[in-house]
Amino acid sequence: MLHCICQQATWFLLTFFFLKLSDGGKVLVIPMDGSHWLSIQPVMERLHHRGHQVIAVVPDANLLIKPSDHYIVKTFAVPYSTEYLKTELQKLGYKVFVHQPFLTRITETLARIRNITMIYLNNCKQLLYNKDLITYLQDSKFNVVVMDPLSPCGQIVAEYLSIPSVFYSRGIPCGLDAEATKCPNPLSYIPKFFTGSTDHMTFNQRVNNVLFGSFQSMVCNLVYSPFEGLIKEFLHRDMTVVELYSQASIWLLRYDFVFEYPRPIMPNMILIGGINCAKEKPLTQVLWRYTGEAPINLANNTKLFNWLPQNDLLAHPKTRAFITHAGSNGIYEGICHGVPMVLIPLFGDQADNAVRIESRGAGIKLDAVKMTSKDLSNALRTVIYDKRYKENIQRLSSLHLDRPVEPLDLAVHWVEFVMRHKGAPHLRPAAHDLNWIQYYSIDVIALLLAATFLFLFISLKSCLFCCKKCFCKSKSN
Amino acid sequence: MLHCICQQATWFLLTFFFLKLSDGGKVLVIPMDGSHWLSIQPVMERLHHRGHQVIAVVPDANLLIKPSDHYIVKTFAVPYSTEYLKTELQKLGYKVFVHQPFLTRITETLARIRNITMIYLNNCKQLLYNKDLITYLQDSKFNVVVMDPLSPCGQIVAEYLSIPSVFYSRGIPCGLDAEATKCPNPLSYIPKFFTGSTDHMTFNQRVNNVLFGSFQSMVCNLVYSPFEGLIKEFLHRDMTVVELYSQASIWLLRYDFVFEYPRPIMPNMILIGGINCAKEKPLTQVLWRYTGEAPINLANNTKLFNWLPQNDLLAHPKTRAFITHAGSNGIYEGICHGVPMVLIPLFGDQADNAVRIESRGAGIKLDAVKMTSKDLSNALRTVIYDKRYKENIQRLSSLHLDRPVEPLDLAVHWVEFVMRHKGAPHLRPAAHDLNWIQYYSIDVIALLLAATFLFLFISLKSCLFCCKKCFCKSKSN
Repeated sequence: MLHCICQQATWFLLTFFFLKLSDGGKVLVIPMDGSHWLSIQPVMERLHHRGHQVIAVVPDANLLIKPSDHYIVKTFAVPYSTEYLKTELQKLGYKVFVHQPFLTRITETLARIRNITMIYLNNCKQLLYNKDLITYLQDSKFNVVVMDPLSPCGQIVAEYLSIPSVFYSRGIPCGLDAEATKCPNPLSYIPKFFTGSTDHMTFNQRVNNVLFGSFQSMVCNLVYSPFEGLIKEFLHRDMTVVELYSQASIWLLRYDFVFEYPRPIMPNMILIGGINCAKEKPLTQVLWRYTGEAPINLANNTKLFNWLPQNDLLAHPKTRAFITHAGSNGIYEGICHGVPMVLIPLFGDQADNAVRIESRGAGIKLDAVKMTSKDLSNALRTVIYDKRYKENIQRLSSLHLDRPVEPLDLAVHWVEFVMRHKGAPHLRPAAHDLNWIQYYSIDVIALLLAATFLFLFISLKSCLFCCKKCFCKSKSN
Repeated sequence: MLHCICQQATWFLLTFFFLKLSDGGKVLVIPMDGSHWLSIQPVMERLHHRGHQVIAVVPDANLLIKPSDHYIVKTFAVPYSTEYLKTELQKLGYKVFVHQPFLTRITETLARIRNITMIYLNNCKQLLYNKDLITYLQDSKFNVVVMDPLSPCGQIVAEYLSIPSVFYSRGIPCGLDAEATKCPNPLSYIPKFFTGSTDHMTFNQRVNNVLFGSFQSMVCNLVYSPFEGLIKEFLHRDMTVVELYSQASIWLLRYDFVFEYPRPIMPNMILIGGINCAKEKPLTQVLWRYTGEAPINLANNTKLFNWLPQNDLLAHPKTRAFITHAGSNGIYEGICHGVPMVLIPLFGDQADNAVRIESRGAGIKLDAVKMTSKDLSNALRTVIYDKRYKENIQRLSSLHLDRPVEPLDLAVHWVEFVMRHKGAPHLRPAAHDLNWIQYYSIDVIALLLAATFLFLFISLKSCLFCCKKCFCKSKSN
């Protein structure tokens, strides 16, 4: 009885400290598919547990988005099937292994980016011009939109419904996030995505970083400018996507400085790296996820499964190494459990993620196209038997896990903060109200330079005049 | 009995969550006197409660530093008395009310700064060349130095003892903090101390801000360069104070973005604004702290006391307004309890603090020299009867208090983090390894410009050459 009452007291206190049940609000989630969806799910579940109603709006053809007890999934029709999506994704994977000349690869990559943009744009149109859905969203009186800024659609909805928004992202590869938050981004030590550089660059790498920075701005334009027409059409406003994104109240960013290189951040950027590394469940055997046919020469100590709980597997004390495609979720699970990695990046931010882990001596990066089985076994042997890899990843792990608030609690706090205060305008820097000439003080510098030159000019002229006078005088004498 | 056991369970849980008793470490504190000392005390007390041994090293002549059960105070002899210190401080206060021409004021201020610097420098020498004290510090095997960066002495000790350090500060007025952390500091929207500007500046104010920025760099040099000789002498290293300060593991900064204007921060800058607003104790009467003789015309409803618990007073529900000299501790107590303010700044950062509160519509700033009793009563009437002041300060208060971790817990977490991990090198940006030409990519831009001009020049020459050929050809035809 006594035990029971104390347990109740404990439960009550735990509820008070960790759940702090709030007045239920309404959260609209506009997510992206694939791993992006997997990464946003824990936040949605926790918001549900805290008494909020969570509604996700997604296209009816998708890969991983399933209904759940924790949230309502509202779909809108799109003119393609789930099968089509799967085939496109597989193509993207296979492309990595096709050998192509550099220029063809660039052209094809740009074409693919354009293609994906068009899919996102059309999805967005399908959402915005779905009258029933928009009426439903209007009537629902949401308190906040939580959205993935890979597509601007969520923020267009937020603007239309006049609701504050929280962005949930690993970062936007073309640098739109830095532009939209007015976050300084010195090219001298912050490597651009896809350059493969670390934060310590040679002169050549720094030249490359500056050139690539300009190239990425063009890519940003290629990807996002088509949405500006839609913004004008739907919101009746002339607004660039940067201006649209600058309206975000909070950016929840899925990294920290154990993984990402230290750099400036802005007050509304909240770092929640490692949010996906949930408490592990125990495992009993060692296993291999593999969806194809079993190889004939498979060793007896390898078991094949269609799906495996990766996080639980990494937490197993017998796990010695982690062969990964270097997606950011997986990498954080590796950091979280202190498992050294062999990184075989395929596309997206994966190559950059791999560079980060390798540069910290916590893993070895291999080239998916060029590597041999010998390379793989050598890399595995090295990360397992060279103690420094285990030491380095354990150091990263202990730094990563030593934090005043768990990333999931932090994410939920800030979503609820935005709900409670109807945004976070006190975190918006005045830089948003300046044009780039003002921001970089170019007008001030121009004035000061002009004043200096004028002063020098007048001084010089006066001197010359005096000299002339003296000279003439002495001459006349 | 049951009640008692449940209370015990509650106490146990509270202890677990809030105190989380750690293996005791040793913390060396090198503080500054006055309000700086008052602001660092809660951290020292909490560190003591968490099982650490806390030792403060201070000059034997000081204003507010008293021994306590929570920490050991070690003094070193200085060649002046407490009385001398008090007189100097009073002079500083009276100076505010003396009318002086602009240039005299500037010269006198610079002389006073130089004078204070010399006092700090001599104090530091007294500490460093006190053999017994230094031997004691060496033998004590401290885990961390917590220091006030207004004087570089603490960091010299940290370097000498090879211990990581935590800086505890409101910010260094001349901008040394931004330089030492490599924190971007755009002059277009971040007003410099003492300019009286907000984050929204006119063109003239921006010009002023740039000019004042350069002036402050000179002041920084005036104040801190004398320490460079001491660094060379004592550490046998050629090191500027900026380089010395860049060694800090963590900067605990006593502001947040409810009070300070939103701006970039660096990963090792932890904001703990409001750390001094402790839980209030109840009050029963309204009162006035006043140390002089009671005025003859004192109203019956005013009681005079030598000392008052300001924080408890502000927390009283009947407190309608707060007349303050706009020190940052007091302002945070006002924000914390949502009391509108009449701000009469005297010196230091007080005028800038007052501008911040006034620009947010939560108080009225008066000029201590020019104001009349009518101005004061008008200001008081306005902040009390114009509802917007109360609404604004209450909004600021609710934003300020809505945080995932209490500032004191956050401060203690990071001090202990540095103790556990022997620093925080993973938060150190690679910018520290670049010179300013590299940092601003000036070498890269020069190369790219040169390449562009060369390309244009060759193209032009080729065109001219072709034209000439064609022209000659047509001519010969």
